[in-house]
Amino acid sequence: MDNFEFHNHTKILFGKGQVSSLKNELPAYGNRVLLVYGSGSIKKSGLYDKVIRELKEIDATVIELAGVEPNPRLTTVNKGINLIRENQLDFILAVGGGSVIDSAKAIAAGVPYDGDVWDIITSKAKAPSNSVPIGTVLTIAGTGSEMNGNSVITDWDTNTKAFFNSNHVLPRFSILDPELTFSVPRDQTVYGSVDIMAHVFEQYFHASSNAPLQERIGEAILSTVIETAPKLVNELNNYEYREVMLLNGTLALNGLTVMGVNPDWATHLIEHAVSAVHDIPHGGGIAIIAPHWMEHVASVRPEKVAQLGVRVFGLDKAGKTDAELAAETIQSLREFWKSIGAPTKLSDYGIDDKEIELMTERAMLAEQIGNYVPLTKEDVRKILRNSL
Amino acid sequence: MDNFEFHNHTKILFGKGQVSSLKNELPAYGNRVLLVYGSGSIKKSGLYDKVIRELKEIDATVIELAGVEPNPRLTTVNKGINLIRENQLDFILAVGGGSVIDSAKAIAAGVPYDGDVWDIITSKAKAPSNSVPIGTVLTIAGTGSEMNGNSVITDWDTNTKAFFNSNHVLPRFSILDPELTFSVPRDQTVYGSVDIMAHVFEQYFHASSNAPLQERIGEAILSTVIETAPKLVNELNNYEYREVMLLNGTLALNGLTVMGVNPDWATHLIEHAVSAVHDIPHGGGIAIIAPHWMEHVASVRPEKVAQLGVRVFGLDKAGKTDAELAAETIQSLREFWKSIGAPTKLSDYGIDDKEIELMTERAMLAEQIGNYVPLTKEDVRKILRNSL
Repeated sequence: MDNFEFHNHTKILFGKGQVSSLKNELPAYGNRVLLVYGSGSIKKSGLYDKVIRELKEIDATVIELAGVEPNPRLTTVNKGINLIRENQLDFILAVGGGSVIDSAKAIAAGVPYDGDVWDIITSKAKAPSNSVPIGTVLTIAGTGSEMNGNSVITDWDTNTKAFFNSNHVLPRFSILDPELTFSVPRDQTVYGSVDIMAHVFEQYFHASSNAPLQERIGEAILSTVIETAPKLVNELNNYEYREVMLLNGTLALNGLTVMGVNPDWATHLIEHAVSAVHDIPHGGGIAIIAPHWMEHVASVRPEKVAQLGVRVFGLDKAGKTDAELAAETIQSLREFWKSIGAPTKLSDYGIDDKEIELMTERAMLAEQIGNYVPLTKEDVRKILRNSL
Repeated sequence: MDNFEFHNHTKILFGKGQVSSLKNELPAYGNRVLLVYGSGSIKKSGLYDKVIRELKEIDATVIELAGVEPNPRLTTVNKGINLIRENQLDFILAVGGGSVIDSAKAIAAGVPYDGDVWDIITSKAKAPSNSVPIGTVLTIAGTGSEMNGNSVITDWDTNTKAFFNSNHVLPRFSILDPELTFSVPRDQTVYGSVDIMAHVFEQYFHASSNAPLQERIGEAILSTVIETAPKLVNELNNYEYREVMLLNGTLALNGLTVMGVNPDWATHLIEHAVSAVHDIPHGGGIAIIAPHWMEHVASVRPEKVAQLGVRVFGLDKAGKTDAELAAETIQSLREFWKSIGAPTKLSDYGIDDKEIELMTERAMLAEQIGNYVPLTKEDVRKILRNSL
């Protein structure tokens, strides 16, 4: 392991009816609130009314930032920053999924920052320690944003998706009620499951040594997704499946499995480049790219792909080389994702080879990306071509 | 799952040389420090000098409470409370293992409390929210006390071991340097490994439903202990084995695997009764009692004992009943613990049947103890008799 610091102080309030904790949690931070949400599905589901009732009970002043997009935009972030400054608000309540929470984080960091918030989002400047405190009410399992300091924002003027990470924007509390995820449609539920698995992969394929416990915890999450997702996609209102998937999503990206290891993240960088050029769902893009990424990895270092197959997909290793096992692993992964209804190629989204160069360009944040098997520009181009 | 709240805000500083973080972490809490430690092995190892150098760098005033016992005593806790009150100290630095940290927690809670600290230790009163802040430098893997709010203290006047749990005594930071555990002798290393496994068992055998992820994370910890402990006990100065075991211990009891489930803890209650009457090492007592407890459990509910055997001990389940698998699981556990040198019966410590009634009495904190399979007084007596 590498030396590491772990300090995840988000308070998780998990289970049925936890929205009613809002009135207890919020007052510690003030009562002038920016309420951030997305398309308005929280109005249809009745969650909006519940949240407003809680806020009224503590006489909160509420300013709303509605309409946060699925791949959230820099323009929206700037809107939020202005709302907080103009109205002197002291807390951000993000009600929604990853994009809503990610936007809240960028807003939180941008408010006390003198320059352009894009500096922070692109990690050129650090998030200030006096970032505005955030709380979340989660409505979709997947991104893990409810218990980490990550934020991914897109500047659509330049087709650039960027991200930052800071403990200063870690949610102070997050409310995770499985019932609030009942309204997530089947396709989004699939994307969430794919994203959770991909988060584990990014950390499982690390460039460090001697992390058997972290790897096994990753395998525990993967096995549980593989057991639960097929049942869940056929029974979207099942509380037990929803609660398991919700916890899977949170633990997949809260710092637990990355303790002491240097993670990869190449797959996400490539997908971010795709969805910064074509506005497709992140989980859908991941389902397409990850197997091609894994094929490249297996051609260089097959051993951990093989381990994944044996431990998670139950492959029998007797008499097989790592390369053979790795090929079977990737086949198993493809079959699993296909079985729950994930897309398999970029053309499923109508994407052809026209923008391959732009996407390749956007993915290359450095000479090489990824850490387990570093990728050159040529590797990335090949992975994208194979994904078409 | 049951509804749950998870809020573990301990900052973990893990790895070689992390003691030098002390001077950065401490000043946030003041510089009048009660330094708590045990038998003096930290003086032999040079750790004491390192810590004192750090404290000097920030001009700390240091008062010492040395000589904390392996099964720490109420008298020691009261001594610490008086030292803090008399010297108006504002921070407790616990340098040692579980008993040192547990003592620090009881002291921390006792200082601002008007009554007898025993009220808090026996959970009759709550730990005050203004408990004195604590930091730790861990020197032995096992108890998990470095990242939880648990404390176990013994009143030797009445042979009573009691415990409490409060987030108000959760360490603010814990320094985990694997090299600091090199000096732990072989027997203590074995006890730590046993204790870690037993912590997983207490939460794995829970009285709730639908917690597949928590169970798999428990299995991940168990598998990693089983892989690492036999190598470690034969190579006590191996950094890689020590770092894995250190992380095992912390994650086994930091709230992770108990999310949303009602844990058992009967084995610990029985062992606490044994070591409150006979001053034996906790991990040694656990190694003796746990298999007999598990036999009782298997006679009532064999299915999860069977699952443990299949997933962790690699048993082949083909054609076997749960009861048969459970018997094999317990046999595997016994063999494993014996192979690393753990004791197998109370007579190994010279304990005979004379105090069976007193120990049974002390274990019965209620009409029945434990939650997965609640135990009557008769059950406990039987488990103790079988352990002789």
